[in-house]
Amino acid sequence: RVNGDRLWDMLMEMAKIGPGIAGGNNRQTLTDEDAEGRRLFQRWCEDAGLTMAVDKMGTMFMSRPGTDPDALPVYVGSHLDTQPTGGKYDGVLGVLAGLEVVKSMNDLNIKTKHPVVVTNWTNEEGARFAPAMLASGVFAGIHSLDYAYARRDMEGKAFGEELKRIGWLGDEEVGARQMHAYFEYHIEQGPILEAEDKQIGVVTHCQGLWWLEFTLTGREAHTGSTPMNLRVNAGLAMARIMEMVQEVAMSEQPGAVGGVGQVKFSPNSRNVLPGTVVFTVDIRTPEQAKLDRMRATIEAKAAEICSALGVGCAVEAVGHFDPVTFDPKLVASVRKAAEDLGYSHMNVISGAGHDACWAAKVAPSTMIMCPCVGGLSHNEAEEISKEWATAGADVLLRAVLETAEI
Amino acid sequence: RVNGDRLWDMLMEMAKIGPGIAGGNNRQTLTDEDAEGRRLFQRWCEDAGLTMAVDKMGTMFMSRPGTDPDALPVYVGSHLDTQPTGGKYDGVLGVLAGLEVVKSMNDLNIKTKHPVVVTNWTNEEGARFAPAMLASGVFAGIHSLDYAYARRDMEGKAFGEELKRIGWLGDEEVGARQMHAYFEYHIEQGPILEAEDKQIGVVTHCQGLWWLEFTLTGREAHTGSTPMNLRVNAGLAMARIMEMVQEVAMSEQPGAVGGVGQVKFSPNSRNVLPGTVVFTVDIRTPEQAKLDRMRATIEAKAAEICSALGVGCAVEAVGHFDPVTFDPKLVASVRKAAEDLGYSHMNVISGAGHDACWAAKVAPSTMIMCPCVGGLSHNEAEEISKEWATAGADVLLRAVLETAEI
Ligand SMILES: NC(=O)NCCC(=O)O
Ligand SMILES: NC(=O)NCCC(=O)O
Repeated sequence: RVNGDRLWDMLMEMAKIGPGIAGGNNRQTLTDEDAEGRRLFQRWCEDAGLTMAVDKMGTMFMSRPGTDPDALPVYVGSHLDTQPTGGKYDGVLGVLAGLEVVKSMNDLNIKTKHPVVVTNWTNEEGARFAPAMLASGVFAGIHSLDYAYARRDMEGKAFGEELKRIGWLGDEEVGARQMHAYFEYHIEQGPILEAEDKQIGVVTHCQGLWWLEFTLTGREAHTGSTPMNLRVNAGLAMARIMEMVQEVAMSEQPGAVGGVGQVKFSPNSRNVLPGTVVFTVDIRTPEQAKLDRMRATIEAKAAEICSALGVGCAVEAVGHFDPVTFDPKLVASVRKAAEDLGYSHMNVISGAGHDACWAAKVAPSTMIMCPCVGGLSHNEAEEISKEWATAGADVLLRAVLETAEI
Repeated sequence: RVNGDRLWDMLMEMAKIGPGIAGGNNRQTLTDEDAEGRRLFQRWCEDAGLTMAVDKMGTMFMSRPGTDPDALPVYVGSHLDTQPTGGKYDGVLGVLAGLEVVKSMNDLNIKTKHPVVVTNWTNEEGARFAPAMLASGVFAGIHSLDYAYARRDMEGKAFGEELKRIGWLGDEEVGARQMHAYFEYHIEQGPILEAEDKQIGVVTHCQGLWWLEFTLTGREAHTGSTPMNLRVNAGLAMARIMEMVQEVAMSEQPGAVGGVGQVKFSPNSRNVLPGTVVFTVDIRTPEQAKLDRMRATIEAKAAEICSALGVGCAVEAVGHFDPVTFDPKLVASVRKAAEDLGYSHMNVISGAGHDACWAAKVAPSTMIMCPCVGGLSHNEAEEISKEWATAGADVLLRAVLETAEI
């Protein structure tokens, strides 16, 4: 079993970097705070005897050697970046639990045939640069390096330049390494485990996603002196699309979600009807056919809504992954580990996207989840208990040991 | 008659300060560009023999003496500040036409019994600091100086500090002066004069306004892993309120408008349901009872919409004026001036708010309007012809001379 107190102390220490405004964190990818978090993690890993490699996406690979020089490594990891108003555990738990697994192996003097590599993927959140899971997406060959480097934040800064600026541009080719297996431990970010009173989520699938960025073009005009019938109101079109997305998601229940997190009005002045409105629709479901249908319905209905108002409508897919089925053998090893340790468990489908979704394209992959209070995440009030954190790390240790072969 | 070419040249010269991105202007109040525009106007006025006074709201009063030391001045004015993506004429025309009127009086060696004062009111637009017509509102005793100084822009900068910073904090008490009459010449910002092919709008009324700033409190949560039935979706509540405002405005046709120009999502991340949504509803109508009814309906229905979604709803009125009736004698003098000059004219109700609305609280006031292309304003593409500009300035000269008494 792992040392739960040590894991918890690392979590609390890391949370001091890039503190939020309400108890959580703002350590967005490729900020100075991200760089500082990486340095702390690097120091802890090196203290534990791991050696570092960094790839051209800034992803950190911290290696513990195996006994068989020909054996591919077992990877455990997640991400240290956060939302602008993020929690202390989303991603961080998976990275630091990976390190705790290695520390426990050191304590117990356990040697494995396969090396074990603790991984911190760059820009998992996608908050600053869309899409999410950007570095693992390049690793899996989904995106090109050029595409990734050209992603821009809301201030127009490019991913490639920011990666250089914070000093974490590595020289390893992205995707050069092969994986024997990839494990990701993460908080659930949803309400099911807590409601069902289970300690461990055995993650069998992840739902698929589309991020549809709409750019609506209206006519900038005075809110007071422009008669209703002369308005080309892009804001109203946005409101109708938001309601329509809600209706589409509700009509696909159970097992579908749809919503809007980001909106930008231009010029965003109280007495000017917006000339341009940009916003992103986020839709998800575990069923491929449903995902395709939702996207098609939303695009078709949005076009109708806009055309009725004379508003121009352009849609760009700024994020996408299909539903994922995790590796049955690894899933079984996680379930068995929970059983053996006496932890209550159930199968779950991940509602959020994770680097494991892209890793699954190139290696046997799976995930382990622990509950979080009220299912709340992407909120500074995100909370878990030390016991929950420890149970999942115990399962991670056991599954990793089985896969890496003692 | 005025010198239309000279007026046009001044308009084009002023438009070089704070150029926009599409042919218009970004010379928002209390920016460095505003300060530069003020200095140019000051120089032009002093060249025309006017003497300057500046009050504690930064409003500029440029005086031409009268022959009777006891006679109160006749004021002509408007504003030099613009929207972030504003036109070259909105406000600017009224200020520079006032100066052109004085220059024409100088050319013709005309002396008046009453002094004539050309006025540039601070922060008419209300784009950077709500409410609009802020300085004239303090002048008329509607707002206190403390209230005005404490207004903040989206970056949190206070009006009072910005006024000091740009060097245009004057020492005259606000509202200390009395007015014999106030004339404001402005582009229509609406489509009626052009559609009716009239050169002059004789402005009899101005419609009333409420700016209702809604702060909706939802629960920040993950867009992917938060089931639809657990969402406290402040963005959806906003969408429903926008649609409802549209319905309320449509149900009060003709003679009512309603819309939203400014929206802010927090944290504004693609995969986070917003914790807070702030947006401003702008409703207007010339009828007092209708204005009151629209506000009450919107607030009541918004409360219902939010309560059905579990979203918190707070409303603050950040701008307001009741419908205005302009001074019948001054209105008649404008109509007569148009008649005498042979310009086609019609009565109009101002759709936009103007400093004349507050001046009307403390002095006989009225307005003159000229058409603008397509009724378009609060848009960099705002356009008028030199002939339209000149006709209104001719009417202004004649009405001012009648009121200031030769
Ligand atoms: N786990 C997580 O919050 N990932 C961010 C990508 C997503 O929106 O699902
Ligand atoms: N004239 C003008 O655009 N004034 C701004 C105040 C308003 O929104 O009516």
